[in-house]
Amino acid sequence: MKMFDMKHIQYEGKDSKNPLAFKYYNPTEVIGDKTMEEHLRFSMAYWHTLTGEGADPFGVGTMIRPWNAYTDPMDKAKARVEATFELLDKLNIPFFCFHDADIAPQGKSLREFQSNLDTIADSIGEYMKQTGKKLLWGTANNFSHPRYVHGAATACNADVFAMAAAQVKKAMELTHKLGGENYVFWGGREGYETILNTNMKLEQDNLARFLHMAVDYAKEIGFTGQFLIEPKPKEPTKHQYDFDTATVIGFLKTYGLDDYFKMNIETNHATLAGHTLEHELHLARVHGFLGSVDANQGDLLLGWDTDQFPTDIYTTTLAMYEILQNGGLHKGGLNFDAKCRRGSFDEKDIFYAHVVGMDAFARGLRNAHKMLEDKALINPLNERYASFESGIGKKIVDGQVNFNELSQYALELGEIKNNSGRQEMLEGIINTYL
Amino acid sequence: MKMFDMKHIQYEGKDSKNPLAFKYYNPTEVIGDKTMEEHLRFSMAYWHTLTGEGADPFGVGTMIRPWNAYTDPMDKAKARVEATFELLDKLNIPFFCFHDADIAPQGKSLREFQSNLDTIADSIGEYMKQTGKKLLWGTANNFSHPRYVHGAATACNADVFAMAAAQVKKAMELTHKLGGENYVFWGGREGYETILNTNMKLEQDNLARFLHMAVDYAKEIGFTGQFLIEPKPKEPTKHQYDFDTATVIGFLKTYGLDDYFKMNIETNHATLAGHTLEHELHLARVHGFLGSVDANQGDLLLGWDTDQFPTDIYTTTLAMYEILQNGGLHKGGLNFDAKCRRGSFDEKDIFYAHVVGMDAFARGLRNAHKMLEDKALINPLNERYASFESGIGKKIVDGQVNFNELSQYALELGEIKNNSGRQEMLEGIINTYL
Amino acid sequence: MKMFDMKHIQYEGKDSKNPLAFKYYNPTEVIGDKTMEEHLRFSMAYWHTLTGEGADPFGVGTMIRPWNAYTDPMDKAKARVEATFELLDKLNIPFFCFHDADIAPQGKSLREFQSNLDTIADSIGEYMKQTGKKLLWGTANNFSHPRYVHGAATACNADVFAMAAAQVKKAMELTHKLGGENYVFWGGREGYETILNTNMKLEQDNLARFLHMAVDYAKEIGFTGQFLIEPKPKEPTKHQYDFDTATVIGFLKTYGLDDYFKMNIETNHATLAGHTLEHELHLARVHGFLGSVDANQGDLLLGWDTDQFPTDIYTTTLAMYEILQNGGLHKGGLNFDAKCRRGSFDEKDIFYAHVVGMDAFARGLRNAHKMLEDKALINPLNERYASFESGIGKKIVDGQVNFNELSQYALELGEIKNNSGRQEMLEGIINTYL
Amino acid sequence: MKMFDMKHIQYEGKDSKNPLAFKYYNPTEVIGDKTMEEHLRFSMAYWHTLTGEGADPFGVGTMIRPWNAYTDPMDKAKARVEATFELLDKLNIPFFCFHDADIAPQGKSLREFQSNLDTIADSIGEYMKQTGKKLLWGTANNFSHPRYVHGAATACNADVFAMAAAQVKKAMELTHKLGGENYVFWGGREGYETILNTNMKLEQDNLARFLHMAVDYAKEIGFTGQFLIEPKPKEPTKHQYDFDTATVIGFLKTYGLDDYFKMNIETNHATLAGHTLEHELHLARVHGFLGSVDANQGDLLLGWDTDQFPTDIYTTTLAMYEILQNGGLHKGGLNFDAKCRRGSFDEKDIFYAHVVGMDAFARGLRNAHKMLEDKALINPLNERYASFESGIGKKIVDGQVNFNELSQYALELGEIKNNSGRQEMLEGIINTYL
Repeated sequence: MKMFDMKHIQYEGKDSKNPLAFKYYNPTEVIGDKTMEEHLRFSMAYWHTLTGEGADPFGVGTMIRPWNAYTDPMDKAKARVEATFELLDKLNIPFFCFHDADIAPQGKSLREFQSNLDTIADSIGEYMKQTGKKLLWGTANNFSHPRYVHGAATACNADVFAMAAAQVKKAMELTHKLGGENYVFWGGREGYETILNTNMKLEQDNLARFLHMAVDYAKEIGFTGQFLIEPKPKEPTKHQYDFDTATVIGFLKTYGLDDYFKMNIETNHATLAGHTLEHELHLARVHGFLGSVDANQGDLLLGWDTDQFPTDIYTTTLAMYEILQNGGLHKGGLNFDAKCRRGSFDEKDIFYAHVVGMDAFARGLRNAHKMLEDKALINPLNERYASFESGIGKKIVDGQVNFNELSQYALELGEIKNNSGRQEMLEGIINTYL
Repeated sequence: MKMFDMKHIQYEGKDSKNPLAFKYYNPTEVIGDKTMEEHLRFSMAYWHTLTGEGADPFGVGTMIRPWNAYTDPMDKAKARVEATFELLDKLNIPFFCFHDADIAPQGKSLREFQSNLDTIADSIGEYMKQTGKKLLWGTANNFSHPRYVHGAATACNADVFAMAAAQVKKAMELTHKLGGENYVFWGGREGYETILNTNMKLEQDNLARFLHMAVDYAKEIGFTGQFLIEPKPKEPTKHQYDFDTATVIGFLKTYGLDDYFKMNIETNHATLAGHTLEHELHLARVHGFLGSVDANQGDLLLGWDTDQFPTDIYTTTLAMYEILQNGGLHKGGLNFDAKCRRGSFDEKDIFYAHVVGMDAFARGLRNAHKMLEDKALINPLNERYASFESGIGKKIVDGQVNFNELSQYALELGEIKNNSGRQEMLEGIINTYL
Repeated sequence: MKMFDMKHIQYEGKDSKNPLAFKYYNPTEVIGDKTMEEHLRFSMAYWHTLTGEGADPFGVGTMIRPWNAYTDPMDKAKARVEATFELLDKLNIPFFCFHDADIAPQGKSLREFQSNLDTIADSIGEYMKQTGKKLLWGTANNFSHPRYVHGAATACNADVFAMAAAQVKKAMELTHKLGGENYVFWGGREGYETILNTNMKLEQDNLARFLHMAVDYAKEIGFTGQFLIEPKPKEPTKHQYDFDTATVIGFLKTYGLDDYFKMNIETNHATLAGHTLEHELHLARVHGFLGSVDANQGDLLLGWDTDQFPTDIYTTTLAMYEILQNGGLHKGGLNFDAKCRRGSFDEKDIFYAHVVGMDAFARGLRNAHKMLEDKALINPLNERYASFESGIGKKIVDGQVNFNELSQYALELGEIKNNSGRQEMLEGIINTYL
Repeated sequence: MKMFDMKHIQYEGKDSKNPLAFKYYNPTEVIGDKTMEEHLRFSMAYWHTLTGEGADPFGVGTMIRPWNAYTDPMDKAKARVEATFELLDKLNIPFFCFHDADIAPQGKSLREFQSNLDTIADSIGEYMKQTGKKLLWGTANNFSHPRYVHGAATACNADVFAMAAAQVKKAMELTHKLGGENYVFWGGREGYETILNTNMKLEQDNLARFLHMAVDYAKEIGFTGQFLIEPKPKEPTKHQYDFDTATVIGFLKTYGLDDYFKMNIETNHATLAGHTLEHELHLARVHGFLGSVDANQGDLLLGWDTDQFPTDIYTTTLAMYEILQNGGLHKGGLNFDAKCRRGSFDEKDIFYAHVVGMDAFARGLRNAHKMLEDKALINPLNERYASFESGIGKKIVDGQVNFNELSQYALELGEIKNNSGRQEMLEGIINTYL
């Protein structure tokens, strides 16, 4: 059975005006050292596309979806599995991601939930075998249920910590079983609503204990996927512990976890924290923590997580520029953690949205690859820092000088000559690649 | 000679309505284990109060100051020294802080600058001896001169790095000579304007090299004061490396510097980074990095560093609550990194502003001390986390469980009972202490 | 039957530390020209306190409420009515406010909804008669139902406009029938999600047509309550038409509606628009548009509408300062458009939250009244603008000069003498009243 | 004499990678009904490019400029005039804009300032005759001098109001004499720093009186240029009166000024107020207030006015889309109210920056023209609102229905069918034009 009316979306050449056709994404085309598909490793997000209903704090759901024809939760869950693979097929997306609670109903007990998860995971496994589609990452939803009102691994209640552990344990097992290449920790409510009732040290210590247990359990079951932490500064809580990449690096180092975790960086979370996506990717990259990307975008004039489909080609170009310099995303991918707007409620919008997002990243890949090939930014960069390659600069970098010698050197300097930073010219160069 | 018309500002009792009189600050009154003066360790900021002229990006200076009568830069610098100690005396402030460039004219060369610094520092030393006033911290202004246009320790030009080293070396020597209790690094332009022209890894590595050299030089000269880093997320650069406390902790740990540095936390920098002051103080405290405080406040509806005098008693109460729990600020203090508004341009405003700020913190101290004495927040906090003191919670904290046991435990749990977080009640409790 | 375990909340004197007791609110105490109850005109918001469930975009509802015992929607609606009057009684709140959809289930058709509304409104009317409690304002929820996905009076679909009209017509009738003193228009989704699909002129014209129809219908049915518009800059839409008070004034004047509408100003909406509450109240007041207040507060470090209970005594003091200078709120009131935090989920929190909010405003009233009595701010203000009471200043104000004369006058002026704005001193004065 | 080393910047064809060459701007090429030069009406801003020195709140000026060779203020002013026309010539920019204080030194008295202005204006007039370059608009700098510390037309001091009038009178005369096509009012410090010392009603009344005097004076001297108000929400003051376009419309209507003023809309001011540039242009356009544009851009992650050169082609495309639908800017133009970054301090950066900005807007013009030709957005828009062209929708628009009829109509409706808003598809369409 086919649920969606839309045909397979094909690469139809650059000139077509049909917004449904890919203009830039051609999965088998080779760019540099691999195909576009291998570079981009696109993934569909189960929670937004399959489970999301279009509700917001001021209104109920609006999405018209074929699986709404079913009322029994397990029937609906099965229909969603079927729809997932139809969408992945028609959109030519190789990966998907899920939380435990996205794929199966939670039922009335943890046991029932786990049984439902097993049933659905078997069905997913079957489809994966038939289609060759892959699991980019799995995770546990430890934030929607009322029991997680005060957090999960950072809850003030030890029973909640135990429940969170049980959920992550099972989600790790499912991820392992389905060959997931990563396992993600997004700290849903790991943070605080008011510092007045918060024991921050205990909560952070507990979070670290939790993550160490996860590392241990991965070894126990032989899961060799990459662990990822997804930074976010706020929302739902007033203040999340995993504020941004720099914060998480500090946390991992404080608790001896830095060998086991990389980052899953989301555009909209970056901007809510006051950073660009390229900043977060760059920082993670140069310190060895770039894992995967939640590919979406926010509205910089709004203060909440809008999770829009990525369309801004400045952002996709600079993101791919970082990713190419990272030698690719390795086990990671570009996961569309993005939802159709509440007003984009019919099935066509699922297709439009993914095509627009995939094409924006494909265009970014083309642009970034060309910029690197031309050394358009690298040549000016190397020239700018040339003074550190010889003389006093080299001695600084090599650790061969101290304050005494530098001061001596400085006293003999006349007026220092700096060169322009050329920001406007560099922005103009970027524009020539778009 | 006395420059200012204002009389000594005295503690005049709670009832007076004269805004010039202290209502809450009584330096010799004992609160808990020490006097208010010992708790608060107030400091005047040379740059704002002595050197600042009231210019902003849209207008020139407005401040009417007695030292403007002098035109020769060294005469003006000497008059400022005299004024400093008159103000410290009349306002009953025990400490002051400065950048090298605040106290002496930079002249035409580094040599001339250093000679000017020595002259003025001698004069300052004389006054200190006579008055008993103390230096809370010194620092170098490595951001105002055009040579620092692209940063100092993170400049793209090795000569600039050397000049920065020379300035810090000299500023450390002056601080040491004047008995400064701390030395502060605020990364003026240590950050980037555009990531397009930035080698972030080299810049951060260089910053770490610079700080290691400072640590070494302190040992060399026998300076045993505390090194402090002052986080700020942005301004003047688009993105500063020392974004916030969590970022700096990560940086220090990455580069093996965490044993040598604590934080100098500024209210307005905290809020620009998306945090409350109490968050930054708390985070620094529980991880052992709370050093000192730049006591000011911003306007949360404005996006730049307004450096207003602190008046908000919610903020001062919660700040003192953290500081008391830290056992005080130790070598640190409450430095008024605050400037009279451009429209508050006469000498009276210097007095009003400091009195208002000092009284706001004194009131905060009284409130916080009472809250701690009453265990007004501590009792609910302990109750909230009680589940970690026995049973499964204790095993979690003691590291005696893993995912298998926790999952087993969770499977046997019925519906988990959480308790209300009581945010509104706790906010009501705070109000009863104001 | 009584639903809530809490006793009546009484005024228990200033010294009690029980956060449940009123410290500042004493309804019958006379402050200036009327009782505190008459000054403050507190109101409970049906949607937050009776209908709200504590869901947020990342989690389901958490609130434990007695009416959840009922499953039939009408039974639940009736239980909420009963609970409303119990709460109003126990908390000593004289007013309440509602949207149509808060009080009765929408059923399967407009007819069914209207019939349900009539049933519940009758019940409410009965309780009002028995208790003397009053309706501050009514309104229609024209934003939660999927049909309003693209707006109501500004929808792109004429049928939706008609439905919106039908809902407002009925809500006006109910408000009239229950003696409501005001009728509020909050533009739920009157705005746009993307300007790319928006005919702004048609939408604004239609909104004006809609409001003119409401004015006409009020005349037709004899409703003489005050019409209020509630500004909000964004959320749920990316950009709301009623951005802030100044925007709405412009809109009303553009469309000839300024004689019929005043503002219902909400603290959290003010701050989301970049204004303080006192700014919005002041602007509305001096231009004759101050109608009523939605008394809550936001978190200035968060970018969404948190609708917290008001606790900040700076804000309540300055709000009451404006309200007293307005001669009171007249038909308006202080409506707690505030919700218990998701983590404050038990019945006690309803009581704590309202007591804290009421006491914060009562304290603000006392402070503001004293400040006015003392002319603490008015004396400096009058002095500051004294130059407009005689000479050239008076001629300017009286319209007796033009550019020629002013220029002539200016050419003869020497250096102009300005006086300090004394911001720090004035902030210090405020602190002495808190 | 030629000051700048750079050659004339020419249109060198689309393929060149030299960032100095125009790729999209070809002044004589006809797009639709006029040449690109006529569409775009580019203008250079005297204050940023000629007078700006690159200082910021944390550092002194950095700009290396040929006129710095002169020390006498009038010599420097004359050199700037010469440089202006060389730049306009080499960059092929037809217009310029200035404040009085940009072009001539203020001297020691108003008389001396006016005499200096006359001297320089004569020189400017000469160059204009020789070169054919034109004055887009003039204005007075009523915010930098210390006398304007508390505002100008909204000052608390009547003498300051008179001085402001004298400056505007003279600036209007100069603008008139030089054939300026507009005169701009940007409310430098027309706003407040603290509401505690502000008589907002008197200040706004005075501002209106001031503007009425300007209208009268224009009639007196025969100036028929367009008056423009430039909205800005904050900075330098905490809160500016001309917050945004909607606020100014309300102000103009309140004071009977709406027939005489249009808006000069600046990108960076729009975003500081929480709006996109296209929002402000659209709102102004559909209400008849679109006058001119200050073409720059801000950094949406920073909270101050960065005045960067415009490079974002999304923004330039949507801006030109509004401008084309306005039938062009008429007397207005695209003024580069933009400054080279402090780190872009040499003469080449002036050229790079303007070329990048001009090309970004030329590209936007090409994109927008094509989008309009293709009706790419207009066709979906018309379809979306089709229900208002017949039936009940037409009756609504024609004012032929009231609440009674609409309610009757709504009661007979079944479930309403809405259509998707297609935001993602429309964003995809935009991308195909970039």
